[in-house]
Amino acid sequence: ICIVQFTTKSSQCAYQNKIYKEKTQQDPREQAFNTPSQRVQFILGTEDDDLEHVPHDLFTEMDELSFRAGCATEWKETARWLKFEEDVEDGGERWSKPYVATLSLHSLFELRRCITNGTVLLDMRPIALRRFMVASGQLKEDLYNKVREAMLKKHHHQNERKLSNRIPLVRSIADIGKKHSDPFLLERNGEPSKVGVSREGSSVDFSKVDMNFMKKIPPGAEASNVLVGEVDFLEKPIIAFVRLSPAVLITGLTEVPVPTRFLFLLLGPHGNGPQYHEIGRSMATLMTDEIFHDVAYKAKDRTDLLSGIDEFLDQVTVLPPGEWDPTIRIEPPKNVPSQSKRKRPSQPNGTASPAGELEKEEEHSVHCSLVQCGFKKQARKLL
Amino acid sequence: ICIVQFTTKSSQCAYQNKIYKEKTQQDPREQAFNTPSQRVQFILGTEDDDLEHVPHDLFTEMDELSFRAGCATEWKETARWLKFEEDVEDGGERWSKPYVATLSLHSLFELRRCITNGTVLLDMRPIALRRFMVASGQLKEDLYNKVREAMLKKHHHQNERKLSNRIPLVRSIADIGKKHSDPFLLERNGEPSKVGVSREGSSVDFSKVDMNFMKKIPPGAEASNVLVGEVDFLEKPIIAFVRLSPAVLITGLTEVPVPTRFLFLLLGPHGNGPQYHEIGRSMATLMTDEIFHDVAYKAKDRTDLLSGIDEFLDQVTVLPPGEWDPTIRIEPPKNVPSQSKRKRPSQPNGTASPAGELEKEEEHSVHCSLVQCGFKKQARKLL
Repeated sequence: ICIVQFTTKSSQCAYQNKIYKEKTQQDPREQAFNTPSQRVQFILGTEDDDLEHVPHDLFTEMDELSFRAGCATEWKETARWLKFEEDVEDGGERWSKPYVATLSLHSLFELRRCITNGTVLLDMRPIALRRFMVASGQLKEDLYNKVREAMLKKHHHQNERKLSNRIPLVRSIADIGKKHSDPFLLERNGEPSKVGVSREGSSVDFSKVDMNFMKKIPPGAEASNVLVGEVDFLEKPIIAFVRLSPAVLITGLTEVPVPTRFLFLLLGPHGNGPQYHEIGRSMATLMTDEIFHDVAYKAKDRTDLLSGIDEFLDQVTVLPPGEWDPTIRIEPPKNVPSQSKRKRPSQPNGTASPAGELEKEEEHSVHCSLVQCGFKKQARKLL
Repeated sequence: ICIVQFTTKSSQCAYQNKIYKEKTQQDPREQAFNTPSQRVQFILGTEDDDLEHVPHDLFTEMDELSFRAGCATEWKETARWLKFEEDVEDGGERWSKPYVATLSLHSLFELRRCITNGTVLLDMRPIALRRFMVASGQLKEDLYNKVREAMLKKHHHQNERKLSNRIPLVRSIADIGKKHSDPFLLERNGEPSKVGVSREGSSVDFSKVDMNFMKKIPPGAEASNVLVGEVDFLEKPIIAFVRLSPAVLITGLTEVPVPTRFLFLLLGPHGNGPQYHEIGRSMATLMTDEIFHDVAYKAKDRTDLLSGIDEFLDQVTVLPPGEWDPTIRIEPPKNVPSQSKRKRPSQPNGTASPAGELEKEEEHSVHCSLVQCGFKKQARKLL
C-alpha cells in the first residue's frame, strides 16, 4: 500500500516544478526510462504472480452529489462507460447514445494535478479509508465524519427511476436493503464489511439491475467508480485514487452487480461543479483507455499512474477551439486504430524492419513523448 | 528585430527546463502575468501606431519539398487554410473539402519546441535571411548556400497543374517569369528585391490564379507561408519563424497574389517527412486561429508567441486515442462557439455578474491555464 501525503501547493509553478523534480530527482525507476511510453511498456510487461493485478474488463460509472435546497441529498449516476461515454439525459429520463468522449486538455491537466497531489492508495484492503486519509493529513477527524456522511448518501442510478416507475413494489424492497449500502466500507471494529463481497453475492437485488445492459458487460468485469461532488464543509478539494485488493461488490454503489476495483473521489467546495464534472469525465475516459486501464491494474506507485496519463496525452487527437464546438457529440467511428503499437517498444532505427510510409508513421507516433519532456532519437533530431 | 541563438539541447529535460526557466527568470513582462491567457489578453489589448501590427485576414499555404529520385525538385503546395484545412488529394488532382484540422497534441508540442529553439525574426525588412541565420549561428555559410538553393526551388501550386493541362501556353509564360521567383528575397548587393512588392504589382501572372478561389479571400488579406521539407545536407532541422514588415508580394510563392506577412520554415534531414508535415499543419492551424493570429501580428518577442501557443493549448478539445481514428476528416460544424471570451479577462469572482451555469462554464474555461502552469483562483482551490 502506498500512502502519499496530500499537500497544497499555492506556488504558481507547482505543476511544472513537480514535473521538473520528477525528472531530475531520486526515483531510480524514473531514471531508467526516457519517455512515459517506455515506462508504460515496462509496466505492461511486468508479470505478477498475484492475480489481483491481472487486468479485467472494466465498467465505469460516474456519480455526482446532487443538491436539493442547497443540501446534498444523494449521489446521482450521470454517466457510464463500457467503451464509449453515455450520459444521463433529459433530467434523468434516458441514456444518450454512446459517443466519443470529447475532453478538454485543460481538464486532463487538472486531473493530472489531482493524481499528483491527491491521496493514492494502491491495493488497499477494503476496510476503512479513514485511517489513511486522517493519518496522511489530508483530512482532520471532524471533517472526515462529514465526508463519511456525504459518501454514505444513497446512490441513485438512472435505471432505478425507470424501473421503480413501473413497479413501485421493487423500490420498497430495494429500500429494505438500503442499510447495507456502505460505499466506502467504513470500518466496523476494524473488520472488513461482510456485505456482498463476491460477484455472486446473494445480497444483489437483481430487480434493480437493467438486465439488457448487464448482458453487454463481459464476464469477469470489474467496476471503476468515479465520485465527484460539491459540498459545503470543505474549503479545498480532497482527492483520492484507490485500487482495492481484492475487488469488492459494494451493494448500491454501482448500477450493475460487479465488484469495485477502482474508486476515484473528488469532493470540493461549491461553485466548481462543472470543473469537477469534467475532471471526473477525464478520469473515467482514462480508465476506459486500453493502455491506461492496464497501467492502473499494474501500477506500483503514483508515478506509474502519472506516466500512464502522460503516455495517453502523447497519443490524443486535438481539435482547435475555433474549428469545433466541444458540446457536439461525435458518433463512435466504425473502426478505431489498434492501440497495440502503444504496448510494445518501437523498432530501433537501423534494424531490418520493413521501410515505407506506414512504418515511418508508426515510429513517429511511438518514439517520442514531448508531453513529458522525454524524447528519443527522432525528436532529438528535430532540435 | 529579435534574433535568438539557435541551440541544440540533447538533455532529456530541455523542454521542461525551458518552461521552468521561463517561469522563474528575468523577463519582467513574463512575471507580470499568471497565465498565458492573461498575457495574451494583454498583447491583444496593445495598440500600435504602426499599421504593420494591425491584424489582417490571413491566407495560409503549406508547401513541401518533393522528391524525384532522391533529389529535391520543387516545392509542392499540399494544403491551404482560409478558416478550415483543405488538402491536395489524389496525387495533386484536386482539393479536399474543408475539414476540421485534427492535430496530434504531440505535434503541437513539437511545434512549441520549434518556436522555443528556432530563429524568431519579428518585423524583418524583406531582405536577406542569410545575415540573420549565419550571424545567429544557426547555419554555417556553406550550408546556407544549400538552404538558399532549396528555398529557390520552384513552387508548384495545385491549381497550376489543372490550368496548365488545359492551356499549355500559360505554362511557358509562367516559366518565363520564373527568374523572378526568389522566395526569400535573397539579397542582391544588399538591396531588397524589386519584384512584385505591392499587392497590385504588375508582375502577377493572373493566368495562374484560380479566380474562383481568389474570390473567397477577403480584401486586404495577407499570406502566411508554411514551408517544410526533407533535405540531404542537414543533420539537424533548421527552423525559422519570420514576420515581414512590410508584407511583401513574393512572385511564385503563394497560389494567390497576396503579400506574405509570415514565413515558417522547417528543413531537416530525411526520414522525418511525416513529422515535419504534422508540425507544418499545426503551425498553419495556429495561424488560422482567431486569437493566435492576432498574437502573431502583435507579438514583441518569442515569449509572446509561446504564450499564444499555450493559450491555444488550454482551449483545445481532445479525442482519446482508443475512441477516434485521427485519419477521419471531420466536417466543419454549422456553428462554432465565439472565441471572443478568450480576448477579454474573465469577471473576477464576487462581482455582480449574472450567476448561473453558463457563467460558471465560461469562468471555468477562461480562468486557469494549467498547460503552462499558471492558474488562478479556481484552479488553486482545486489543489
